[in-house]
Amino acid sequence: MANLISRRQFTIEWGQCDPAGIVFNARFFEFFDWGTWTLFETALGVKPPDLAAAFGIVGIPLVDAGARFLAPACFGDVVEMTSQVSEFRRSSFDVEHRLFVAGAMAVEGRETRVWAAPDPADPSKMKSQPIPSSVIARFKA
Amino acid sequence: MANLISRRQFTIEWGQCDPAGIVFNARFFEFFDWGTWTLFETALGVKPPDLAAAFGIVGIPLVDAGARFLAPACFGDVVEMTSQVSEFRRSSFDVEHRLFVAGAMAVEGRETRVWAAPDPADPSKMKSQPIPSSVIARFKA
Amino acid sequence: MANLISRRQFTIEWGQCDPAGIVFNARFFEFFDWGTWTLFETALGVKPPDLAAAFGIVGIPLVDAGARFLAPACFGDVVEMTSQVSEFRRSSFDVEHRLFVAGAMAVEGRETRVWAAPDPADPSKMKSQPIPSSVIARFKA
Amino acid sequence: MANLISRRQFTIEWGQCDPAGIVFNARFFEFFDWGTWTLFETALGVKPPDLAAAFGIVGIPLVDAGARFLAPACFGDVVEMTSQVSEFRRSSFDVEHRLFVAGAMAVEGRETRVWAAPDPADPSKMKSQPIPSSVIARFKA
Repeated sequence: MANLISRRQFTIEWGQCDPAGIVFNARFFEFFDWGTWTLFETALGVKPPDLAAAFGIVGIPLVDAGARFLAPACFGDVVEMTSQVSEFRRSSFDVEHRLFVAGAMAVEGRETRVWAAPDPADPSKMKSQPIPSSVIARFKA
Repeated sequence: MANLISRRQFTIEWGQCDPAGIVFNARFFEFFDWGTWTLFETALGVKPPDLAAAFGIVGIPLVDAGARFLAPACFGDVVEMTSQVSEFRRSSFDVEHRLFVAGAMAVEGRETRVWAAPDPADPSKMKSQPIPSSVIARFKA
Repeated sequence: MANLISRRQFTIEWGQCDPAGIVFNARFFEFFDWGTWTLFETALGVKPPDLAAAFGIVGIPLVDAGARFLAPACFGDVVEMTSQVSEFRRSSFDVEHRLFVAGAMAVEGRETRVWAAPDPADPSKMKSQPIPSSVIARFKA
Repeated sequence: MANLISRRQFTIEWGQCDPAGIVFNARFFEFFDWGTWTLFETALGVKPPDLAAAFGIVGIPLVDAGARFLAPACFGDVVEMTSQVSEFRRSSFDVEHRLFVAGAMAVEGRETRVWAAPDPADPSKMKSQPIPSSVIARFKA
């Protein structure tokens, strides 16, 4: 059974572009973050700022990220972004983001995040925790 | 007696510039924030992340900001920024920032900030507090 | 006759907020920029990246900006932003932006921009130009 | 023979951190960009804004980027960043960035960039070009 895909559409802003007239690369990692929050809201039905409290976690911190830049995105371009968990592991998971401009994939992103709760041994720190199966089940399409 | 002036030098980065090849305006407000923290560290001898604890405050939140853009700053330009409190009031103060490129003023910024402590009536909120005269004294050059 | 008001709604993202949990001030100046482009597209019926070519200008560079921060905006907050030209002068104009969260004004912004064309004496530079009355007329509601 | 390593030190700013109090991930990709420009200036002795003209290229656009986040960096932390080309290929190369806080590696970044010149068939586009051996030689320590 495939995992849920969330979608988000936005238009590239002037201030997101660099002197080459294209989106500055770091901005795409902001967009990926938007995508993950949208995906979690879609799957779990919880507003992003309420996610941590709803599941007794600190958050879903990023431990690895990457992107392939296939084609530029320019000021005024309409981006269609899809986000999907590609793999759930015991306490971490991967999210894939695909950004399309005019129907062609412009950027492919990848995030690895951890399901993190307060560390029982030191609540000021956090520790990865097993992702509840009830959470994973909500990501099935 | 004049107020202390702090100085900071930095070089304009590619990702701070927009498709016109000049620093995107919002970035200057980031620079102003850098300037205020540098000024406070210079005057008070306290590292920025330790400021709140050292003075029993929540922070110095911004309530008003402005900038005049006189000349562009471009990728690779070396910026000399000066920051100075222009006026202390009972519980708020103004900071002036001047950014020079090649000796000419490129941007003039202004911030109004508040000396804010936890609200005694509701510690989850904050409330402006009188700025201690000992703090103000440290800003005299 | 009042000037046209454009509207834009967006949700505050995690990466737009600072350690105080509220939108970092510089981000609001990005939002103001979004607002101005949206207003011009609404009034003139021209996509933002096509504005310069459509009117024979270089752009509408910012020469002055300011903001009053009345209430914080937090991660997940839905912002309603209105943008309106408050005054047209010969070759410059002011745009007012108002950002509302839950019906209350959180931030009031102000931009002064110039209608700028290539300088006839040196086309590598730009020079303010009279704003065509046909342009101004399009901003009447 | 090892490749040249360039170094850069900077302090984490308030506005670079998110509500978790740590640097927002996208900012690290800005830092990597800083690192690559610094490395190229160190190796080639050319100011970043002059690089393209000095070598007859359009630039060194990014085609792939990634990061591993090993430990958080917080407001006020002093970051020591090293940048080094890990591999030159015919017309592309990899840059590795390592960010240390208090002596421990906090983030490891990786960029793949292309040596890009105007496309002879269509000068409005760009095309990867063989990296001159004289350029590669300058990166030897």
